[in-house]
Amino acid sequence: MSQLRQDPTTREWVIIATERARRPHDFAAAESAAKSAALPSYNATCPFCPGNETMTPDEVFRIGNADSVSDWQVRVVPNKFAALTPQGDPSRLSDGLFHTMNGFGFHEVIIETPLHNRPIPLMSVDEVEQVLRASWARYLALHAAPKVKLIVLFKNHGRAAGTSLEHPHIQIVGVPTIPGSVRARNEVAQRYYDDTGRCVYCDVLAQEKNIGKRIIIETAEFTVYQPFASRVPFETWIMPCCHGATFPSDGEIECRMLAPLLHLTLAKLYHGLQNPDYNVVFQTAPIEDEDTPYHHWHIRIYPRLTLQAGFELGSGIYINTALPEETAQYMREVVVPPSQ
Amino acid sequence: MSQLRQDPTTREWVIIATERARRPHDFAAAESAAKSAALPSYNATCPFCPGNETMTPDEVFRIGNADSVSDWQVRVVPNKFAALTPQGDPSRLSDGLFHTMNGFGFHEVIIETPLHNRPIPLMSVDEVEQVLRASWARYLALHAAPKVKLIVLFKNHGRAAGTSLEHPHIQIVGVPTIPGSVRARNEVAQRYYDDTGRCVYCDVLAQEKNIGKRIIIETAEFTVYQPFASRVPFETWIMPCCHGATFPSDGEIECRMLAPLLHLTLAKLYHGLQNPDYNVVFQTAPIEDEDTPYHHWHIRIYPRLTLQAGFELGSGIYINTALPEETAQYMREVVVPPSQ
Repeated sequence: MSQLRQDPTTREWVIIATERARRPHDFAAAESAAKSAALPSYNATCPFCPGNETMTPDEVFRIGNADSVSDWQVRVVPNKFAALTPQGDPSRLSDGLFHTMNGFGFHEVIIETPLHNRPIPLMSVDEVEQVLRASWARYLALHAAPKVKLIVLFKNHGRAAGTSLEHPHIQIVGVPTIPGSVRARNEVAQRYYDDTGRCVYCDVLAQEKNIGKRIIIETAEFTVYQPFASRVPFETWIMPCCHGATFPSDGEIECRMLAPLLHLTLAKLYHGLQNPDYNVVFQTAPIEDEDTPYHHWHIRIYPRLTLQAGFELGSGIYINTALPEETAQYMREVVVPPSQ
Repeated sequence: MSQLRQDPTTREWVIIATERARRPHDFAAAESAAKSAALPSYNATCPFCPGNETMTPDEVFRIGNADSVSDWQVRVVPNKFAALTPQGDPSRLSDGLFHTMNGFGFHEVIIETPLHNRPIPLMSVDEVEQVLRASWARYLALHAAPKVKLIVLFKNHGRAAGTSLEHPHIQIVGVPTIPGSVRARNEVAQRYYDDTGRCVYCDVLAQEKNIGKRIIIETAEFTVYQPFASRVPFETWIMPCCHGATFPSDGEIECRMLAPLLHLTLAKLYHGLQNPDYNVVFQTAPIEDEDTPYHHWHIRIYPRLTLQAGFELGSGIYINTALPEETAQYMREVVVPPSQ
C-alpha cells in the first residue's frame, strides 16, 4: 500500500505511490541522452554562442577578456524576451477586487560557457566556480536595485524543463513583490522557530543525517540529499550545513565550496539517468527578511521525469512514483567519470 | 511592458507577459488533432473498451444493462494503479519531524463512454449528462465513506496533461487529509467573508460579469470565463451563479444544467485549438467545511499549452504568455459544429 508523507518545511502531504513505483534505473532518459551527445560545440544560429553577441541585448557582466567581444568564459545579458523589465514603477493599481502592477523587475541570462554542448556535468570544477561567481555577482547587483523584493535564481535544462535554448544558461529574476507561496513557506519556518527557537531546515537536516539513507553526498559545508517527502522522483536538495538566510552568504568562499558539489550532483544525475531534463532553483530569503533567524538558503533540483496532472492541480498533493530511499541509494552508487 | 495581476481568490501574483504574448490561434495544437482524428472507435488492447471488462478491477457502478457485462454507457472501476486504497487506517505515525500516514483512500476511474474515440466535445449533451450523473453518484459514495476528508474529481486529457490512456475517462479520489494548498485557498475566502460578510467568488464573478470582456458563455445557472489573473493560456472557470459549497449541491438538476455548458466549453477548446491537452478539476469544499458560508464550488480547465519552469517552481509566480481578454474573445467566436 502507498504512503502519505508530510514535508515538515511546508506541511504539504505527498503520496509515495509504492504500488506503481518504478525502479530507479527505469527513469533513465535514453532519448534525451542521444540528443545531447549529438550537439555541436558551436551553433551559428545560437544567440549564446561566441561571435553572435549582437543577437542578445547589451551585456551587463562578463568573466573574460574585456577588450575582445567574443573572448569570454561567462557572459550575462538581459533576457531578450524578459518577463519583467526595469522600466516603470511597480506600485499597485486597484480596480475593485483586481490588483495590478506594472511588470517592473529584472530578468537576465547567465550564459555559462562559450561551448554550446558543455553543460555543468561536463565542465571542470573551475568552470562551475566561474558560473557560480557570475551568478553571485548578478545576485548582488539585483540585490542593490531599488524595489526588488525577491531574487529567483534558476536553471531550466531540457525541453521538459521549459527551456527553448539548449546552450547552457542560468536565469536570474528580480521580482517586485513577495509571492504568496514564499510567504507560506516562510510562515511554517517562522512558526517552528517561535515554538522551538530553532530553524526547521537545520532540524530536518540533522534528522536526515541521523537516518542517513536519503543522503547522497556529505561535506563539511553541504549535505546533498533526497528529502523524506520528495514531490517528484530524484528530487534533490543541496543544503548548507551552516545556517544562513541568503545565497551566497559568504560569497567567494561559498562559490568555491559549492562548485565541486553542484558539479558532482548534476554529474550523477547526468550519468545515472542519461542526461534527464531538470530544473535547479536557489531558494533564498526575500530581501526584507534577510535578518530573520528562520531562513536557511538552499538549492533544489527537480528532475522532470513525470508530469503533474489534474489531481496535483486540484489538491496540491503530488504523487511520487519513486521511493527517495531507493533513488538516493542509486545516486550514491553512480560513478562519475573524470571531466575532460 | 508586461503586467502583474493578483488572483483575488488566492492572493498569488501572475505575470501576464505581453512582451512575448502569442496570438490566440498560435496555441492551436495541429499535431494533437491529427493524432485524435486517427483514433479507432475500438481498441482490442484498451482496458476501458467494451469486451475487455476483465482487464479492470471489479466494477463499482454502471449506467447501462445490468444483465450484460459489455452493454453499458458509463462504467466506474477502482483504478488498477491506485494512488490510495481503502485498506488500512489513515492515522498518523510520527518519527521526529517526519509524519506519515498509510495510503488510505479511494481512487476510481469513470469510463465515460464505450467508444474509444468519443471525448466529451464529440458526445451528445445527453451522453455528457450521463457522465456527470455517474460522477455525482461516485461523489456521493465516497462522501459516505468514513475517514474521507476531501474528494477530488478531475480529468486528464492528452499526454501533456498526464494521461497514459486515451480512452475518455474521469478520475475521482477520496483523500484522508485536507491539503495545505486547499487550506490556504479557503483561508483567503474565509478572511474575505469575515471582512465583508460576502463570498469572494460571488464578488469576483459579479465583477467579471460587469467588465464582460473575459466572459465566454452565460446562462441563468453558470458563467464560463477566463479569470483576470489566469495562470496559463486559455485557463477557463465554470462558475455556478448560485452560491454553494460542493458539487453538485442540487444533484440531478445540476447535472442537467451543467451538461450542455461543459460540452460547449470543451467543444470550443477542441475546435478552437484543435484538440489541445488539458486538465479539468472540480473544486469542492472539504467534507467537514461544507456548511461554512465562504466556499463556492466550481470547475477549472487548465489547457497544457505551455510548461512551468524553474521560475514558477522557485517563486510560485506563473508567467502567462497570453492575454485572457484576447483568448476569451477568441473562445467566444469559436463556432462548434453540431454533434454527430
